[in-house]
Amino acid sequence: MPRYTPPVRDTRFVLDQVLNLDRHANLPGFANATPDTVEAVLEEGGRFVAEVLFPLNQAGDRQGCTRHPDGSVTAPDGFRDAYRQFVESGWGTLSAPEAYGGQGMPHVVSTAFQEYMISANMAFAMYPGLAHGAIAALIAKGSPEQHATYLPKMVTGEWGGTMNLTEPQCGTDLGLIRTRAEPNADGSYAITGTKIFISAGEHDLTENIIHLVLAKTPGAPDSSKGISLFVVPKFLVNADGSLGARNAVTCGSIEHKMGIHGNATCVMNYDGATGWLVGEEMKGLAAMFIMMNAARLGVGLQGLGIAEVAYQNAVAYAGDRRQGRALTGAAEPNEKADTLFVHPDVRRMLMNAKAWTEGLRALCLWGALQVDLEHNAADEGERQLAADLVGLLTPVIKGVGTDQGYLIATDAQQVYGGHGYIAEWGMEQYVRDARIAQIYEGTNGVQAMDLVGRKLAQNGGRAVQAFFRIVAEECAAAKNNARLADLATRLEKALGDLQASTMWFMANGMQNPNNVGAGAYSYMTATGIVAVGLMWLRMVTAADALLQAGEGDEQFLQAKLVTARYFAERVLPETGALRRKIEGGADAIMALPAAMFEAA
Amino acid sequence: MPRYTPPVRDTRFVLDQVLNLDRHANLPGFANATPDTVEAVLEEGGRFVAEVLFPLNQAGDRQGCTRHPDGSVTAPDGFRDAYRQFVESGWGTLSAPEAYGGQGMPHVVSTAFQEYMISANMAFAMYPGLAHGAIAALIAKGSPEQHATYLPKMVTGEWGGTMNLTEPQCGTDLGLIRTRAEPNADGSYAITGTKIFISAGEHDLTENIIHLVLAKTPGAPDSSKGISLFVVPKFLVNADGSLGARNAVTCGSIEHKMGIHGNATCVMNYDGATGWLVGEEMKGLAAMFIMMNAARLGVGLQGLGIAEVAYQNAVAYAGDRRQGRALTGAAEPNEKADTLFVHPDVRRMLMNAKAWTEGLRALCLWGALQVDLEHNAADEGERQLAADLVGLLTPVIKGVGTDQGYLIATDAQQVYGGHGYIAEWGMEQYVRDARIAQIYEGTNGVQAMDLVGRKLAQNGGRAVQAFFRIVAEECAAAKNNARLADLATRLEKALGDLQASTMWFMANGMQNPNNVGAGAYSYMTATGIVAVGLMWLRMVTAADALLQAGEGDEQFLQAKLVTARYFAERVLPETGALRRKIEGGADAIMALPAAMFEAA
Repeated sequence: MPRYTPPVRDTRFVLDQVLNLDRHANLPGFANATPDTVEAVLEEGGRFVAEVLFPLNQAGDRQGCTRHPDGSVTAPDGFRDAYRQFVESGWGTLSAPEAYGGQGMPHVVSTAFQEYMISANMAFAMYPGLAHGAIAALIAKGSPEQHATYLPKMVTGEWGGTMNLTEPQCGTDLGLIRTRAEPNADGSYAITGTKIFISAGEHDLTENIIHLVLAKTPGAPDSSKGISLFVVPKFLVNADGSLGARNAVTCGSIEHKMGIHGNATCVMNYDGATGWLVGEEMKGLAAMFIMMNAARLGVGLQGLGIAEVAYQNAVAYAGDRRQGRALTGAAEPNEKADTLFVHPDVRRMLMNAKAWTEGLRALCLWGALQVDLEHNAADEGERQLAADLVGLLTPVIKGVGTDQGYLIATDAQQVYGGHGYIAEWGMEQYVRDARIAQIYEGTNGVQAMDLVGRKLAQNGGRAVQAFFRIVAEECAAAKNNARLADLATRLEKALGDLQASTMWFMANGMQNPNNVGAGAYSYMTATGIVAVGLMWLRMVTAADALLQAGEGDEQFLQAKLVTARYFAERVLPETGALRRKIEGGADAIMALPAAMFEAA
Repeated sequence: MPRYTPPVRDTRFVLDQVLNLDRHANLPGFANATPDTVEAVLEEGGRFVAEVLFPLNQAGDRQGCTRHPDGSVTAPDGFRDAYRQFVESGWGTLSAPEAYGGQGMPHVVSTAFQEYMISANMAFAMYPGLAHGAIAALIAKGSPEQHATYLPKMVTGEWGGTMNLTEPQCGTDLGLIRTRAEPNADGSYAITGTKIFISAGEHDLTENIIHLVLAKTPGAPDSSKGISLFVVPKFLVNADGSLGARNAVTCGSIEHKMGIHGNATCVMNYDGATGWLVGEEMKGLAAMFIMMNAARLGVGLQGLGIAEVAYQNAVAYAGDRRQGRALTGAAEPNEKADTLFVHPDVRRMLMNAKAWTEGLRALCLWGALQVDLEHNAADEGERQLAADLVGLLTPVIKGVGTDQGYLIATDAQQVYGGHGYIAEWGMEQYVRDARIAQIYEGTNGVQAMDLVGRKLAQNGGRAVQAFFRIVAEECAAAKNNARLADLATRLEKALGDLQASTMWFMANGMQNPNNVGAGAYSYMTATGIVAVGLMWLRMVTAADALLQAGEGDEQFLQAKLVTARYFAERVLPETGALRRKIEGGADAIMALPAAMFEAA
């Protein structure tokens, strides 16, 4: 029943007019990303996900995955064939290194495509999606032999990849890991333990699955400093690249979840499975963060992807469904009722979704471009700035992107009224699917602590100061243009709230770090609002320039101006309340003894 | 896996110390509500729901309801037996009129019990819950003969009751109803049409089900002015009260929903079913509002009930689960990790839930007391004030109560991390169940429009002015007590934001009513914050007086002071941002042409 159209026009506006990809044409990879190529990728890739993956989304949710008595797992009907097409068409290799069979395009291009794939079928997109983190860790930390053994088939998607961190007693706190890695005589390790919540841990889409597993070697310290990363293939790989013996890693069960039923979330049992150390012993945490940071940006994109498809359906329903009359008098007197579109509160939900999704799209793509620049920019200073921004923005994109994904999916469901609660209409699935993104790869509370506890203070606050300077400079410049001045002034005010909050942390965090922890979530939200506000300033700056030049699609560009105004009037004011919450500090939050939370 | 303890201590604090029920002992019904009786009701009723209904909640969600080929429907295993116990023990008759076999207690007492029943098993609570609206409409509008025929068995719960409004093409806009009522020769009517989303429309809990149905008589105007209300029993009732022929109303299917799986949400087909007019022809809308207003307060209570049980479980999990260390240094160095309780962001979620649930409990009970006073107060002025407050607060309790129910259930799930997403832990059910309360009995957007479009302006704004006066007077009085002054000052500021928003509507609504519609939702939210703020002011006033007198449970009363401070510092500031959003008006929201919401 739901529908989905890849928002190619909007993506191209961001890539071409806001990020000006052509400015980076001299950098490695970007030469492969000419405007024509990018357009072809978005159009053809968008068509593939809309025609092949989207039709499987609702059915996949209903059917879910099946674990068979022998421990094998089958994905929902149609997933296997769709995955085969996905691999054959090469949509998974866009930004993978050419050395391993990838197409070597910039990360920002594959990110644009990823959004479409998530909108079309989030549960499906997670099968190749999780492999990306595993590939990133192997590229960064693996040996040349490991590269040769695993990467080519992982990059094409012929083999899957997973990230095995969580255990029943161990979520965020990786120091609590109990999985053991005992050295074998041949330099390999015997891995034993139980991992839970393993996305795509077992399935029938690929002939092999390469598990990256955190475990502790004998005598390792009983903390996160003692963990090491291992590669544990489902099937051992022979010297000639063919598949060898089945490894001692099995799926014990599939979790019964709120959503993403089409993805097999597995309990994985390692029973002396053969694995090999990736990188150095007891340096697993750093390797894990490579996987995790790649995954976190991808999870933020899930918030955007679900928000976009939920929004599109709410728009369609609001245009079809007739109920009540406009407050200003019947809009269509010949009909028995007007469409939902005339009602200001329905429009409020649609405008809010539009303002956030378009803003988040720009932010996710800007963030992805910084990943490219971090690795490829010619100038050392530019690489450092990009790395700083990636570090700062990753928790914000993950946390705020997924919070908005959930809220927008909820609002889109709300537009449907009672029908939104009924499974057939498809909207409640978006809410259930969106919900996980706030939880996994580090809960959003963990993202907030990463932002205020690590990223703010790193290198003397260099990253956040750079971010503030960018916002301040662009606001100052935009205020010279009367058509942009209102947004710039409001964004400047929001920036002022954020800067004041930062100062408050500095003044009150030393005496009691809980003062920072208690405001962390509000701070993350405020940073997200300012960052998306910056994206809106850039979008209207670009739109205004095109309009003044008489270029581009006038209606589309005018809509950017109106939508930016919505963001300015309705979203930016929230930073004031967030600042006041932060300045409340930790006292009222930490004062109650535990017994006083009990009901009886 | 989840647990539930009825919060009797907190309920009694509100009834005894905040609402001072004993002050009303001279009113009809209240004589039955001595402190001892109320305590017995809460303790015994709480035990019943915790022991009998709560254990069926998760299983009922998993199993759902079953429609059989003959159109009959069975509720989940155990529901029928639990319902029999519910009827036999009389928990459904607390505040029903003694004339029809009820216990004649005040509405405020049954409301307190209702909260517990919802927390224990919302899907179960809806079976008798929906009957209450039907009973209210029959009492108000039915003939003496209809009273005698239906009320005694509906009041005891031996017969069920439903409200049949919605049709496939007709939700909020009741003018679109197509169900027809053709007069029969004997004064009855033949009802024909399809009703959807009928909660408890068909089930095996009761021997008869009394449907109240909106339909149109021949020649009635094609608008909401043309609808009439009919009573349509599943089994016709013989003159001696025994059951007669099966009526031509059947369950066509059960909806597949996001949650409340234990309640049978039915498509009901009326195929010339025999019904009788309730009240006057074409006065169905007024009768419907009697049902609906009773239901809306009950739905607001659903938000509270789910929030409470979700909160309790999050508290328990936060106390059990060990992960990470306190920012201020290990709290329990002998353990491998501290409990989640030490983390400020977890505490923030728990404090927020505590502040809202305790505040909403006071607000729901205060609202219920106004229903009692509206009907029973000795003084005409007091009855009018109570009626005004009920009218004003009903959409606020429904809208803000259910929004908070969903958000708090979501936060409680978040405290569980990944386990929150797994069905076995029970938290995701609370989110799914809470979600419907924002949608049915008038979406929360409809509540917001009821508030700003009808309730604000009624009688020259008498109700809202009375509410503002109460808040202002109590703030002024509390500022004389140094221990209450901070909360009072902050509440006064929030009231100022709300009053300024009201003035903005008055100044800008005439020229363009969309300016009011565009701010309606923010206004509803702000009114809820001020109303709950008033409850916190009353609670701390009572707690402070007891503490000064050296009476009561000191730790419990001190916790009230701390929790009020949380509400003051972390929730009240939101009214400032809401005011700024309202003052944004309708322009940015209504400006875009429909085509500009399309993706392509």
